[in-house]
Formats: sequence, structure tokens, C-alpha cells
Amino acid sequence: MTGKTNLRILLAARPEGAPKESDFVLEETPVPEPAVGELVMRTIYLSLDPYMRGRMNAAKSYARPVGIGEVMTGGAVGQVAASKHPKFSEGDIVFGNTGWQSYALSNGKGLRKLDCAEAPISTALGILGMPGMTAYTGLLNIGQPKEGETLVVAAASGAVGSAVGQIAKIKACRVIGIAGSPEKCRFVIDDLGFDDCINHREPDFAEKLAEACPEGVDIYWENVGGAVFEAVVPLFNYFARVPVCGLIAHYNATGLPGAPDKTPLLMRAVLSNRLKIQGFIVWDFAKQEREFQKAMGGWIRDGRVKYREDFIDGLENAPKALMGLLRGENFGKLVIRASPDPTL
Amino acid sequence: MTGKTNLRILLAARPEGAPKESDFVLEETPVPEPAVGELVMRTIYLSLDPYMRGRMNAAKSYARPVGIGEVMTGGAVGQVAASKHPKFSEGDIVFGNTGWQSYALSNGKGLRKLDCAEAPISTALGILGMPGMTAYTGLLNIGQPKEGETLVVAAASGAVGSAVGQIAKIKACRVIGIAGSPEKCRFVIDDLGFDDCINHREPDFAEKLAEACPEGVDIYWENVGGAVFEAVVPLFNYFARVPVCGLIAHYNATGLPGAPDKTPLLMRAVLSNRLKIQGFIVWDFAKQEREFQKAMGGWIRDGRVKYREDFIDGLENAPKALMGLLRGENFGKLVIRASPDPTL
Repeated sequence: MTGKTNLRILLAARPEGAPKESDFVLEETPVPEPAVGELVMRTIYLSLDPYMRGRMNAAKSYARPVGIGEVMTGGAVGQVAASKHPKFSEGDIVFGNTGWQSYALSNGKGLRKLDCAEAPISTALGILGMPGMTAYTGLLNIGQPKEGETLVVAAASGAVGSAVGQIAKIKACRVIGIAGSPEKCRFVIDDLGFDDCINHREPDFAEKLAEACPEGVDIYWENVGGAVFEAVVPLFNYFARVPVCGLIAHYNATGLPGAPDKTPLLMRAVLSNRLKIQGFIVWDFAKQEREFQKAMGGWIRDGRVKYREDFIDGLENAPKALMGLLRGENFGKLVIRASPDPTL
Repeated sequence: MTGKTNLRILLAARPEGAPKESDFVLEETPVPEPAVGELVMRTIYLSLDPYMRGRMNAAKSYARPVGIGEVMTGGAVGQVAASKHPKFSEGDIVFGNTGWQSYALSNGKGLRKLDCAEAPISTALGILGMPGMTAYTGLLNIGQPKEGETLVVAAASGAVGSAVGQIAKIKACRVIGIAGSPEKCRFVIDDLGFDDCINHREPDFAEKLAEACPEGVDIYWENVGGAVFEAVVPLFNYFARVPVCGLIAHYNATGLPGAPDKTPLLMRAVLSNRLKIQGFIVWDFAKQEREFQKAMGGWIRDGRVKYREDFIDGLENAPKALMGLLRGENFGKLVIRASPDPTL
């Protein structure tokens, strides 16, 4: 983490089940020098997100897997440390998908300058970045919340879930969160203003969820899967919508669950209740990025949307932090602080 | 079946698994007499449709279950035998949801006069009725076929599937049918003009389906479920659409299938491929009934849409015919001929 070496974290092996430290390798290389038309960015904040687990697999998905020996993928906020690029100057604060490394060489493509006066720069990885836009676009385009409807969202204290629920409150929905600890549930109710929040680790979780949704469920934001989804299926109202943006409960699975095969239950619910289940990724709605930033920026300034960040110091701790994220150990948007934030 | 008695078929018991004869009871009652404002219709054609299996269960669905001891539900075409209703005259040919009985008393509500010159009156139960409109509205509103896309439809020689595939051909899709016998497959290709049709009873069905869809599947019309659905899931393209209008393979199930639970496979496909899976029933699109009748009527007159009816004589044979329908034994739209058609 000095100015002299570049710490890079590479994918060493494709995980079987939950990732472990040996699936990553840390290497130190010299800090790169920019050629003409290039710049070098010093990473300040690295975003850790559930989708990264998927990129560690070889399986076909919407994005290319990270190759063995390649730098782990990830969005980051950093400062231009050296530039021979006409559009970027030393000292600029930028966002880019530069991966798990303390310095990144870039030709400027995909890099975006941040206005430090507008919001804390770390928010470009969270509420004002990909997770916030995932919530905004998926909820408005697919969830289509209407006044008085009931929305259920899991991982409710997390980066996406917390935004989904707060936007749904702005749209006058009844919002029920699901989270993994009493502390998280309290935060979701007291700080984020959800109507209720159920701890999915309690043995009577499904009953409590049903009690919290006396008028059924009109929108279920699917970012978890597994037992949470199963508890929601019997609660669906006619014409309920299910935006599917993640399945974190499945990501570490090495095989399929045992009997019975519950697919017929789900499809029966789809038919009888005329559900709409729709998968998406945020970039399907790339055209709405400006609209999102304007709306979300306004809500944050007005205090209508709050956010919580969970900082972990030291890039070398990213592997362990991602493992914890997949177990639900973070509390808020998980961000690695790779180097000091000069704007604070 | 004389003019003097009314044969009514009642639900005697809720079936466990496949319905059997003893789940129905036939009773003969006097032919009803219309009071002022009423009419009596003699049933000519009774429609048999897969959804009827669902109505025999007590479970919540989009429609009220048939009660034990109640006349089985069903659409029918008949002739007004006696009328004290101002809008209906003896001899009128009408369509209504009058159920499994040779005579029906009606106050005219839900009854619609048919124009015998326009099309054979039996088509009001099939291609120009609920099954045809199911195909039209579900395909255009949810399936949203685009030129050059690949559509897969099961039960391809049946009332709904045959219409779905032919409309998709009109919309310039590549259309692959799935049917249950070589004869049905030949009919689907030669008479209906599908690009291919695969027999789902063949052991290498999934491989053959994949071969028939070299560019993947953009629309899968779900009216079957089970093994057919499983064979389609790996073939989905990005942004594929799955209108869900039936699950005939599940209707007689008494429990869930064994291990593994394939729900995660399905949800993973939804997420990775951004699928849209949406259930519907035809009356969700009730406002499009006129549009449908106009479009479909035109296509039939132009020879662009063909239909096949499978007539069985005698109302008393309806229970056995429904049992056969659920095993895929019919070939075309299944219709009970309860009494002679005076328009032929």
C-alpha cells in the first residue's frame, strides 16, 4: 500500500462452494507508469458486491468470468496519481471498474470524474452508484410500485435492499424488510423507516413474515433466493411482480437442494396468481443513469433516502470481506478502504 | 339426451391425482322451464379444456372451485329451446358458460348470440373462442414475438398451442412445436406450417429440441410444465419471455417430484438470461376480445390460421374425454357433441 508497489489480488482458483483465502492470490508489482493517452489511478475505495461470486465461476452468465490469474473485477473510486491523458489530471477523483488493485493503469475508457462537492465520493460505489441504480431501475421498471401495495425486500440493510425499500416508501408502499440480525432489523425500521423487518434467522421466520403482510405481497424484490423466497411464494397477491436481481443464498451452492422439487409450486403460483418474475441487470437500463442520479441525489439531499456504509481498511482484506459478505456479515454497503480519502 | 330429460354431470368427489369416473355423477332431471326473463338452451357442443382439472380441486386459484354436487363448469354452444327473455328467441344459437348439462336455464347473463354465417358454431369454443383468444392475447401481450425469433410451444396440435404457433408464424418467428405422437408432429409441420415439431415421448427429446433450436429460444409458451419445461430452460436466450397459461403435466400430481429441487436452476436462468416469466388468464385481456375476433376471423378466412377439432359424441362421455385430455389423447380442440348441430 506504499506508493512504490501495486498490490493486486488475483483469482487463483475457481471456488468449490464458499470461496476461501486460497482461491485468491496477492501479488505485489511495480506501480505502472502511464504511456501517452493513459493514466494511473490510486484506488481509494473498492466496492465489494455479491455479483463478484458469480464472476469467480466459469459458468456462462451475463458477464465474462474472471480468468484464473486475472485481477478480480470490481468498481472503485480513486485519485489520478499520474496522467498522460488529455482529459484527466493528477488529483482528479474518478470512478471506474478497475478491480482489486491499489493502482490501476487506464486509457480513460469507462472512467468517470466525480464531483467531490456533490456527495461523499464513496457513495459512487453504493447509493449513487451501481447498487442504488439497480434498486431504482429494477423497482420502477419491473416492480412498478403503486400506492398502498406491499413490498418485501430481503437483505434489507444492504446496499440494494435498503435503497429498494426506501424508494418504495417514497412511492407510498407498505415495506417489509428481511435482514439477518436484530440490530439490522432495528436499523431498517428505525433509521430507514420501513414498516417492519423480520429476522430470517429466527425459527418462525415464515410465520412472522406472513403476519407482517396481512394483505399479501404485491412486489417481492428477489436478491436472495432459497428459504426467503419460499416463505414469500404463498403470500403473493394477484399480479404480483418479482424483479430478480440476485440470488445470494445460491451463489456458494455446489449442488441442488434435496427433495422435493418445488418448481411446480412456484410455477403454480405464477399461473394462479398471474405473477411476473423478471430477471435483470442494472445495465439493461443504462439509459436511465442520469435520471437515476438526479432522483437519488435529490432524495439524499432531502433526507428521504439514507444509506449506511461498512468500511473495511486494507485492500489485502478484500478476500476475507467478500467471504463475509456472502455470509451476510456486512452491515450496509461493503467498501474496502484501500488508501486514505483525500476529500475528507 | 331426449327432449324430456336433462342430463347433468356433477362433481361427485375431488379427485386424488388423475380424475376417475367415480369423481363424476350423471343425473337426469326434468328439462327446466323458463320463467319470465329466462330462457332454456339445449347444449349442442360442450368444450373440454385442461383448466377444468383445476376447478375440481378445492385449492385457491383464479376461479372458484366447482362445489361437490354442482354441475361441472364449461363453455358451451347451444340453441335456445324456449325463451321468455326479451333478447333471445327460440332457435337462436348462443355461446355461454353453461356447464356439463344437456339443457341449461339462463337469465341471459353471459350469453352471446353467434352469427352462424360467419364460422362453424363449434369454433366459438376453440379457435374463435377462449383457447384462440388465450393464444392471441398471451402471445402478443407477454410473448411479444419479433421477426426472426424462435418460439417453442408444447401441446402444439392442441387448441391453444396450434393457435400460438400459427400466430407466431404470421409474426415471422421460427416456430418449434412439441407434441405427443408422430401423427401430431406431422400435422403440426405439414398442416399448421410450423418449422419443426418434436415428439416429447421420445427418449432423446431434450437433445432433439436443442437441435431444433440452434439459435436458442426467445419465447417459450408454457402450457405443460414438467419435463418439457426442463428441456427448454437451458436453451433460453437473453431476454426470453415465458407466458404461462397452463401446466397440464402437473394437474394430476398428488405431491411434488423428488430430488433435486430444481428451483435454483430456474431462478439462475431467470437472473442470468433476464427471463420474464409471467402467468395470465385470458380474461386479464378481456378488453381485447373484439380485436382478437377481428384478427383471428381474418386469418381463418385468409387460410393463414387452420384449426382441428376432435369431436366426441354424447355428453355422457365427457368425464372419460376429460380424463383422456389430461393424458394428451385428444388430437385438436376437444369438443363434446351433445346434440345435433342444426346449422350443418
